[in-house]
Amino acid sequence: MLFEGAEKRLEMVIDDASASLRGFTGEFWSSALAKAGAEILSTQTNADCDAYVLSESSLFVWHNKLLLITCGNTSLVDTTLHIVKSIGIDHIVWFSYQRKSELFPHLQATRFEEDIARLKQSIAGQAYRIGDLDSHHHYLFCSAPSAHSQYSCALQLYHIKGDVADYLCGPQQSKDTILSLLQLGVIWPEFTFDDYLFDPMGYSINGIHGREYITLHITPQQPSSYVSIETNMRAGHRLMDGLNSLITVFKPSSWDVVGINASLSHYEFMASQLLAQTHLVLNDTNTLYISHYKPRVSEPLTVVSL
Amino acid sequence: MLFEGAEKRLEMVIDDASASLRGFTGEFWSSALAKAGAEILSTQTNADCDAYVLSESSLFVWHNKLLLITCGNTSLVDTTLHIVKSIGIDHIVWFSYQRKSELFPHLQATRFEEDIARLKQSIAGQAYRIGDLDSHHHYLFCSAPSAHSQYSCALQLYHIKGDVADYLCGPQQSKDTILSLLQLGVIWPEFTFDDYLFDPMGYSINGIHGREYITLHITPQQPSSYVSIETNMRAGHRLMDGLNSLITVFKPSSWDVVGINASLSHYEFMASQLLAQTHLVLNDTNTLYISHYKPRVSEPLTVVSL
Repeated sequence: MLFEGAEKRLEMVIDDASASLRGFTGEFWSSALAKAGAEILSTQTNADCDAYVLSESSLFVWHNKLLLITCGNTSLVDTTLHIVKSIGIDHIVWFSYQRKSELFPHLQATRFEEDIARLKQSIAGQAYRIGDLDSHHHYLFCSAPSAHSQYSCALQLYHIKGDVADYLCGPQQSKDTILSLLQLGVIWPEFTFDDYLFDPMGYSINGIHGREYITLHITPQQPSSYVSIETNMRAGHRLMDGLNSLITVFKPSSWDVVGINASLSHYEFMASQLLAQTHLVLNDTNTLYISHYKPRVSEPLTVVSL
Repeated sequence: MLFEGAEKRLEMVIDDASASLRGFTGEFWSSALAKAGAEILSTQTNADCDAYVLSESSLFVWHNKLLLITCGNTSLVDTTLHIVKSIGIDHIVWFSYQRKSELFPHLQATRFEEDIARLKQSIAGQAYRIGDLDSHHHYLFCSAPSAHSQYSCALQLYHIKGDVADYLCGPQQSKDTILSLLQLGVIWPEFTFDDYLFDPMGYSINGIHGREYITLHITPQQPSSYVSIETNMRAGHRLMDGLNSLITVFKPSSWDVVGINASLSHYEFMASQLLAQTHLVLNDTNTLYISHYKPRVSEPLTVVSL
């Protein structure tokens, strides 16, 4: 029952001269995703975006932009190289490939350093590690200086607990109940949602609203319980009220905020303590912000009999 | 230059009917240590104890007790099984085998779970993990209930910095300068010390005083800088003043305290914050205490270009 919730993340933007990414067929995406070991489970679409729930996380495709997030033991680097080759490297004006440190690194097919060695054969760029090796850390590889400015904000919640966490590990679950527990439709009613409940547990949901997206993935099982939330909603009370509501629901023992040009440092998470943060200027137009939080009230260390 | 400072630790006590452990020859210990990939570099002795500085950490041998700490990529489990067989399992009244989570687990020959599967073929006991997989965590396997009460207190300092840390990574080092920077002879003048300076860096020192021991190991290099300190000195101002002095010298970004029947919770580390703690009753006479601290003033997350 070990499941690696920690994600790999590919984001790329193409130039205006290129054909729309939405012109690629469903078959193209399916065969590209198969190289990572992932498949499409559900699709929704609006005028701006095609949003796919995958067997491991999510894919969003806009006319000029692609966001692909995969968890588990997927080899996202293989899908990435396939897509880059199909689009043509000269048409890519922003490229970033990220990996969150895993809970079970020994079960992964590759390490970040190995992925980067392969990517660098096709894509010029710079790789970073943010955070120490003995704490949560984040790897990022991004393309050489680009004028294209990105925007995204991701939350990674570690070790969830409480009634909702218990329900999500329970024997009888339904999508309707989970939706009502999460209250996403109440928090952000302007979005349309598409969700998937995994067997025996695990839950993914995508929301889209014009060019805006939100994606939330839950790995409820111990010892790797984990929730990720990502959106391009602008920082502000609309975003913070929702995130605080989700933190209240999931009761994580700590969480990270990873923003590209999105800093939440002017806002407050309720009853929390900022343990560490940094920002990293990636190029003239893009800065990465990472912050690590925990609840103000400290918890005992976990003890597990092996 | 990757060096794994995190240690594996074997402690065992034999019954009164057994011959003294100090009766084993130097050749016996050398050949036992060779099975882990370690060798003896320096020896000191007093009426109660033989203390060895090893190529990877330290060995202490008393009449009825043995403490063996190894770092790097040593396979302590092999040495352990050899010693257990030589002594005879029926003569062992306390047995504990510990591993600290590593910074480079992918470079280790075995995982804790694999070690335990082998140990359990010879020794009845219970294994635990303390701490979450995505934070510093500690593994302990100890023998089935024993009336023998242990006592030890270990500090693990993560990510040292400042003048002393810089000196320890520098090109020109001497044992005398390091001794005077650490001030161990001033802090605890009753101990006699035996130290070793590694090339190009790294420093180990053992101190003994009657049945008391202290052992300190420094892995100064990035990204794995680490200092461990362990002693059986009783909790009190004599111990705490010294530990606070060493924390002031090394300026770690966080540290753990691991005590067997030693809790420092009634004492204060200067300018620090207790992030998490727990205790675990191992049997009628032994309790494990683990606490995780950080400085009160938070530091930015590390950023490394890869």
